[in-house]
Amino acid sequence: MQLRPGPPLTGGVPLWELDEEEILARVLPLLPGSAGLVVPPGDDAAVVRTADRTIATTDTVVLGRDWLDEWSSGADVGHKVVTQNLADVAAMGGRPTGVLLTLVADPAIGLDWVLDHARGVAQACRAADVGVLGGDLSSAPAGVVMVSVTALGRLAGEPVLRSGAHPGDVVAVRGSLGLAAAGLRLLQAGTPELHPEAVARQRRPHAPLAAGPEAAEAGASAMLDISDGLLRDGGRLARASGVVLDLDPTAIAADVDALVPALGPSAARACVLGGGEEHSLLATFPGRMPGGWRRIGVVRAAGAGQTPGVLLGGRPQQSSGWDHFRPAPGGG
Amino acid sequence: MQLRPGPPLTGGVPLWELDEEEILARVLPLLPGSAGLVVPPGDDAAVVRTADRTIATTDTVVLGRDWLDEWSSGADVGHKVVTQNLADVAAMGGRPTGVLLTLVADPAIGLDWVLDHARGVAQACRAADVGVLGGDLSSAPAGVVMVSVTALGRLAGEPVLRSGAHPGDVVAVRGSLGLAAAGLRLLQAGTPELHPEAVARQRRPHAPLAAGPEAAEAGASAMLDISDGLLRDGGRLARASGVVLDLDPTAIAADVDALVPALGPSAARACVLGGGEEHSLLATFPGRMPGGWRRIGVVRAAGAGQTPGVLLGGRPQQSSGWDHFRPAPGGG
Repeated sequence: MQLRPGPPLTGGVPLWELDEEEILARVLPLLPGSAGLVVPPGDDAAVVRTADRTIATTDTVVLGRDWLDEWSSGADVGHKVVTQNLADVAAMGGRPTGVLLTLVADPAIGLDWVLDHARGVAQACRAADVGVLGGDLSSAPAGVVMVSVTALGRLAGEPVLRSGAHPGDVVAVRGSLGLAAAGLRLLQAGTPELHPEAVARQRRPHAPLAAGPEAAEAGASAMLDISDGLLRDGGRLARASGVVLDLDPTAIAADVDALVPALGPSAARACVLGGGEEHSLLATFPGRMPGGWRRIGVVRAAGAGQTPGVLLGGRPQQSSGWDHFRPAPGGG
Repeated sequence: MQLRPGPPLTGGVPLWELDEEEILARVLPLLPGSAGLVVPPGDDAAVVRTADRTIATTDTVVLGRDWLDEWSSGADVGHKVVTQNLADVAAMGGRPTGVLLTLVADPAIGLDWVLDHARGVAQACRAADVGVLGGDLSSAPAGVVMVSVTALGRLAGEPVLRSGAHPGDVVAVRGSLGLAAAGLRLLQAGTPELHPEAVARQRRPHAPLAAGPEAAEAGASAMLDISDGLLRDGGRLARASGVVLDLDPTAIAADVDALVPALGPSAARACVLGGGEEHSLLATFPGRMPGGWRRIGVVRAAGAGQTPGVLLGGRPQQSSGWDHFRPAPGGG
């Protein structure tokens, strides 16, 4: 996403009129604890009940790059950044145990945004039955607001890596494709009414969190969540496993068709194949898929002279999708 | 610290000429792994070997607020942000198991800074025998560079909280007082040559990491690290425990005296009592202190009408020290 930043929201008391402890005193009661929390936030560090192995992942969102206040409320941003971190835990086959939350903000922003943000964080945490383990609050240069979340998780069995796909496995997806990217395009075009569900998904992605550990139990050989686009993330899985993902265009035709009325055929296809921020799960299964997954292709061995990657209808695909440092591509 | 930001450093290829995977391919080989790392960085999440309870803490530093490129190299910043997180693990009585590292940077900064930063992170991690479990890399608005670290740790016994101090306990400190704050003042005054050790401590604080679990084993009743100043952090411990920390001015006189030639008596005293970023440990012990700690006072019950807090030579002290959102006080 390449966005023009607007001015930060100023509703409520500006943060610079409060000290850190006063802000935390307002925010902490909004955040859920958890039964596994041995020492809650407020000491030097939290202590959380864990097992012999802990999943750890972190992801950050930045005002103007990952969201615009004109399009997303503070609660939307909180819900989304927690969800995308929990999706990474699910994509390992794990269940989340808690999150740490860091807000780095221009002191001119208002407390209203911060409290609304905390409510969105809490909603996403409660839906996943996890607590906020701790966090940090820090001031930033004028106009800057960013949120960083670290999620921890636990495993019942072995983690499902990107590197375990084998020729003959089924390629399957759990969840939607392209909706979040379509929603962004409609917001950019000023026509959100053309597909309200897509716009809602851009603001608050649906990650099928329970499907991650279910897939692990069902024997998934490789898995990741689609954060940067089906082709780009599929390419990562393919390269990590040293295989080719041979995707069936007919299996994703309905996803494209559903977006055509709002976006036209070319953009609809680009969203389904390259759209990030979806946080659906992409996995490979050597045997039967669990319920709720749909088959979109098959894993093949990379032939002589063939590099691991993604084929669509037998043709090699360039991985398009979101990259964080290069300028955004024109076509997307 | 309230600092004027300078322009970000531009040595080497600018980040915007590279994609995320190219940057990570340069950074990841610089970072240490760890024997406890079951799944290393590169998948959706890392998996780390843990026990039944995990310590989790996070802390963020921002260019212009927490460091200036004129005063601190990328390696200094990396070393410092890791150290301050590991100090929080030590202050719970734990040993670190790993860190997650997030860099959010203006794409105009050069790769040289990023690689230098990674080397500083690696030095601090190796010194503590921990690995980098994962992280995130994200672009930021022009001029913005920030680093967020999450540290995980393990406990051998019970965590040492801030709230366990009892009347009669000894108040003790492990490590220096006021050096990092003195170093900052000298950098601000343009006279770093007046106390090079203090300036070095500002750039790279010494946290006595092993002393944390040693104190826990020795029965410390309460502990924290001095990140925001002796009086401010002492006040936190006192309030959490519902006690008074009665500090002996003669026990810290040598710390003040050592800074007087460089700073004069008033600023020297302000640094020792209110100086943050030191990351020495402050603890209370019901019995004998372990070696290396020095007694600086005693815990007393809060008398009738007396609020929990810090006394110095019997007189109540205002907690001064660093606050993240309010404008910096004139006197420090």
